[in-house]
Amino acid sequence: MSVGWLEADGEAAALGAAMHGLVQRLYPICRSITGPGVRETLGILRELVPLELHEVPSGTAVFDWTVPREWTIHDAWVKDPQGRKVVDFRRSNLHVVSYSRPVHARMSLAELRPRLFSLPDRPRWIPYRTTYYDEAWGFCLSHETLEALPQGEYEVCIDASLEAGHLTYGELLLPGATADEILISCHVCHPSLCNDNLSGIAVATYLARLLSTCPRRFSYRFLFIPGTIGSITWLSRNEPRVDRIRHGLVLTCVGDPGGFTYKRSRRGDAAIDRAAAHVLRHQELPVALRDFSPYGYDERQYCSPGFDLPVGCLMRSPHGEFPQYHTSADDPGFVRPKALTQSLAVCASIAAVLEGDGTFVNTSPKGEPRLGKRGIYRAVGGGLDSRSAEMALLWVLNFSDGRHSLLDIADRSGLPFASVGRAADTLRQHGLLRELAET
Amino acid sequence: MSVGWLEADGEAAALGAAMHGLVQRLYPICRSITGPGVRETLGILRELVPLELHEVPSGTAVFDWTVPREWTIHDAWVKDPQGRKVVDFRRSNLHVVSYSRPVHARMSLAELRPRLFSLPDRPRWIPYRTTYYDEAWGFCLSHETLEALPQGEYEVCIDASLEAGHLTYGELLLPGATADEILISCHVCHPSLCNDNLSGIAVATYLARLLSTCPRRFSYRFLFIPGTIGSITWLSRNEPRVDRIRHGLVLTCVGDPGGFTYKRSRRGDAAIDRAAAHVLRHQELPVALRDFSPYGYDERQYCSPGFDLPVGCLMRSPHGEFPQYHTSADDPGFVRPKALTQSLAVCASIAAVLEGDGTFVNTSPKGEPRLGKRGIYRAVGGGLDSRSAEMALLWVLNFSDGRHSLLDIADRSGLPFASVGRAADTLRQHGLLRELAET
Amino acid sequence: MSVGWLEADGEAAALGAAMHGLVQRLYPICRSITGPGVRETLGILRELVPLELHEVPSGTAVFDWTVPREWTIHDAWVKDPQGRKVVDFRRSNLHVVSYSRPVHARMSLAELRPRLFSLPDRPRWIPYRTTYYDEAWGFCLSHETLEALPQGEYEVCIDASLEAGHLTYGELLLPGATADEILISCHVCHPSLCNDNLSGIAVATYLARLLSTCPRRFSYRFLFIPGTIGSITWLSRNEPRVDRIRHGLVLTCVGDPGGFTYKRSRRGDAAIDRAAAHVLRHQELPVALRDFSPYGYDERQYCSPGFDLPVGCLMRSPHGEFPQYHTSADDPGFVRPKALTQSLAVCASIAAVLEGDGTFVNTSPKGEPRLGKRGIYRAVGGGLDSRSAEMALLWVLNFSDGRHSLLDIADRSGLPFASVGRAADTLRQHGLLRELAET
Repeated sequence: MSVGWLEADGEAAALGAAMHGLVQRLYPICRSITGPGVRETLGILRELVPLELHEVPSGTAVFDWTVPREWTIHDAWVKDPQGRKVVDFRRSNLHVVSYSRPVHARMSLAELRPRLFSLPDRPRWIPYRTTYYDEAWGFCLSHETLEALPQGEYEVCIDASLEAGHLTYGELLLPGATADEILISCHVCHPSLCNDNLSGIAVATYLARLLSTCPRRFSYRFLFIPGTIGSITWLSRNEPRVDRIRHGLVLTCVGDPGGFTYKRSRRGDAAIDRAAAHVLRHQELPVALRDFSPYGYDERQYCSPGFDLPVGCLMRSPHGEFPQYHTSADDPGFVRPKALTQSLAVCASIAAVLEGDGTFVNTSPKGEPRLGKRGIYRAVGGGLDSRSAEMALLWVLNFSDGRHSLLDIADRSGLPFASVGRAADTLRQHGLLRELAET
Repeated sequence: MSVGWLEADGEAAALGAAMHGLVQRLYPICRSITGPGVRETLGILRELVPLELHEVPSGTAVFDWTVPREWTIHDAWVKDPQGRKVVDFRRSNLHVVSYSRPVHARMSLAELRPRLFSLPDRPRWIPYRTTYYDEAWGFCLSHETLEALPQGEYEVCIDASLEAGHLTYGELLLPGATADEILISCHVCHPSLCNDNLSGIAVATYLARLLSTCPRRFSYRFLFIPGTIGSITWLSRNEPRVDRIRHGLVLTCVGDPGGFTYKRSRRGDAAIDRAAAHVLRHQELPVALRDFSPYGYDERQYCSPGFDLPVGCLMRSPHGEFPQYHTSADDPGFVRPKALTQSLAVCASIAAVLEGDGTFVNTSPKGEPRLGKRGIYRAVGGGLDSRSAEMALLWVLNFSDGRHSLLDIADRSGLPFASVGRAADTLRQHGLLRELAET
Repeated sequence: MSVGWLEADGEAAALGAAMHGLVQRLYPICRSITGPGVRETLGILRELVPLELHEVPSGTAVFDWTVPREWTIHDAWVKDPQGRKVVDFRRSNLHVVSYSRPVHARMSLAELRPRLFSLPDRPRWIPYRTTYYDEAWGFCLSHETLEALPQGEYEVCIDASLEAGHLTYGELLLPGATADEILISCHVCHPSLCNDNLSGIAVATYLARLLSTCPRRFSYRFLFIPGTIGSITWLSRNEPRVDRIRHGLVLTCVGDPGGFTYKRSRRGDAAIDRAAAHVLRHQELPVALRDFSPYGYDERQYCSPGFDLPVGCLMRSPHGEFPQYHTSADDPGFVRPKALTQSLAVCASIAAVLEGDGTFVNTSPKGEPRLGKRGIYRAVGGGLDSRSAEMALLWVLNFSDGRHSLLDIADRSGLPFASVGRAADTLRQHGLLRELAET
């Protein structure tokens, strides 16, 4: 699998524009953990990739949880004593606390005040709040607006329903040469938030499009699911099959221009952890590697101790650590086409490492084989940094003793996996390397 | 076990004053490795804790050693040519080299000079010297005094006896729910030296008083013994029972205001080593962790290769590394009530970790259990830092897989053990955690 | 084995002078991987050590390689259009590309130019180039000379032969008490280059002289071989016996005044790696320890995966990382008598660690044995730093539990191996230590 196309600037720019266009198109939709917003989102994605849609009825028991009622929001507003709509869902779907129960009432500002959420430190931004599992309601608004509200009687309306329905998620399997799977998971439950939610959706969608055109050793399973309840639901419905998942990545906050952050799987030394660390070390942006913690996105569920799947989480700026997080400032301008392309390239490179890794045995292990007489130096020298290519040949020959994989050799040598992989291909062609039968 | 009382400022101040008062009371006594000074010291401690006294006859073989004759010192002085007492045991018991044989003689200053010890770098301080296993004698004095001695004939007198008697030590066992023991050992063989010897005695005594009022899983064995020969004697007499010692601490130099120093057991990764490191990381003073070395206090004997007990050593400023060490400047002013209280709190917290540690299994390990429906967030939120409390719940749930103890989880999460322990208690109450049967 | 003589300044200076004299004497000889230069070099070494010479016929198959034809060079020059010798082998044997095929021709400067090699960055230095396995020819010259060449017709002559002959190498075995071997290998294939090639030859020769006068537990095998093809040839001819090699060192670039560089064996934690690191840590020059890489000198062959011998590489400035490398500036002035002596001392100290290491058991392991009654403190105190000597006794006693070797104890204590070894000797003499039977 080659990701050389990503080096072609025009192709990369076109992909970045396409992913950013998808983010912009999905931005206005009011998603939540259930309801029409998720369905509309998945419908748009189906124009790009052949997602299978799943509908799980409200009330279905999924491990310790129950699939909740479906939330449908039609409108929501707050009118001030003069009857002016000072808060209006139609201007921003962040204005209504997600999963608010329906309400239509009049009350004083003092009575209303505990239902209003703002960010005093960021007075022009609207916060994002949810009340999934409490029967409550509320509004979010900018602190400037809040501060300007006059005393008097207010009219509030949340025209929403909470009724038996379904939890909806999308799934796509790209079959490979083996049934071993690589899981790519992103959440689709946030309303107008771009880095958190839409960036992961865009990168996952275009990664699926890319991988669908490549030969694949692994099968790839893409999940577009509501956070927490979605992954718990999927795990509950697929429990007998989860041991097929050999590697996995949760994608979130992959569109901002910050450096990369990779959060290791609970295992800490899974192949996905090593592949991600390798790829990130060999790209140019700053990188932070973090150990697993049981707080974050759906890796919490995949890495719960009853599953302990080898699933890490790829981010740029980590959730909760950039000021725009869960505010109206996480808008299409915060997410950049180039950043989306870089994230896509990292995902594709990680897949390329996992696809290409293997353990080999040097068939001429006593002293170095004489590469010159086989013309190998020349053979690999063309168009490459020949010094690095020669080094890769020596490293692969020396450490292909059946105990070091190509990724081991790449890490130990400091060479990029692609160089090591090319060297291994060359040596195999000349009979100097044979693959160790997998155990 | 809770050490919450130490957070109550009044209680802490009272304890500090009490420990410092004990140091002051014991300060004038001329202790050595045997003799009446040790007995008098232990007698005072028995007013506070029900020590059992042991008397081991001189000549008793204890491994490679023999219990020495008992040393009794009545008086000692040096008179200058004018008959003035220029060195007088009654003014400081450091003046006589400990275990000096009796002498009464006249001699020139030149003849006397090799018997006189001073500190040229610290001209006003009297050093502390011993001659336990040589039949020798000598005096210690300030360098100022030494330099001022006129030529002429001197009269020296050491009115002491070295006769068959006993080696004396004190022992206290606080029985717990199990016969597994935690050993707390301090030395009682130094004369008027406070940080070295009296600080450890005071903290051990008040730790025993504290633990005597708490429910205990472990039994606690306190030893108040002369250094080296005392621990060798105790080990020799208790050899069949030493495998009950599951954890141990030697306390020394725990009264000065410096940061904490913990010297690991010879094993290096014993539970006591991890518990001490955890507690010290979560308090405010600077901390130095050191690997075991075969030089120091009685941990040398407990960690000799024939025993290799899991015994570490807790100090503030390490012996030999502060200028007052083994000099008259290690006086009651060098030891601080607040420092004694901090040391006591650290000891109690280490005991709390050892008492509270355990390995549990999450009974709802597939995905996260839904804590909200059980009201657990609220249940633990009251009065605590609720974010830290929620994190502790998630950490305990995720890593309670039978392979991580609560201390493992505390260390991995960066949370204090107490938070993790409270989370585990809450989860057990809600049936989400069960203890792994100990193997 | 003691290297105390190296502390005697006069002896050290004399050795440094002798080694530097050997470098100067060997400097003018035009060595290559085969041919009379190697034979002449080995002949001179045989005046100092009883080397056995081996001649392996051209065409002999050695693993994946074939012993090449023998190269004999008589003369080589370039005459400019005026007939002046602008390049003359007799002035520097670096002028001819090593293993150039014979040529005698006239050609334009433009035609000649691709055959001329210079160093634009170092315009006065002549580079060193080879063409071992291509049938090619060429000249090396200073960039100043190259730039001054006028246009016109040149006459070039390389009076050399490439004919069936032999590959020559020297070997010396110093038998020890056991058949276990320590391998010392250096290359003898470079012409007038001092740090690269002659420094290793000089140190290896004088190390052999030194070891020949010492009692030896190990047998020592010295190899003076052409690089790559020489070690491959030796391995091929000695394959059934290589498992006798318990430790090994390749010596190269050990004469410049830079700090030491030790490149670990492929195993990374072999005894030679630990012994070398220990010795280098306890000497005064800067030290760099590097992991094995499959590029360098003959450690590449000894550490090929079919052998994986515990062979490291000792250097001062690493090959390729000092500007004089492979240029005419690597001359006798670049190599210093004192540096050669330091390198010899390091080699001898590494041998002393390997010879003296062993695992012992404390026969009095319960508590510390009483050293005073045995007079051991005094016994070891004479003439040494007594504090360090006492510490060494305590460390050896505490960690001699059958699981820690003396080198383990030296590393853990921070004491030099020699102190630990002396302590072990003293303790054995007093029956406090017995050697663990080797398994």
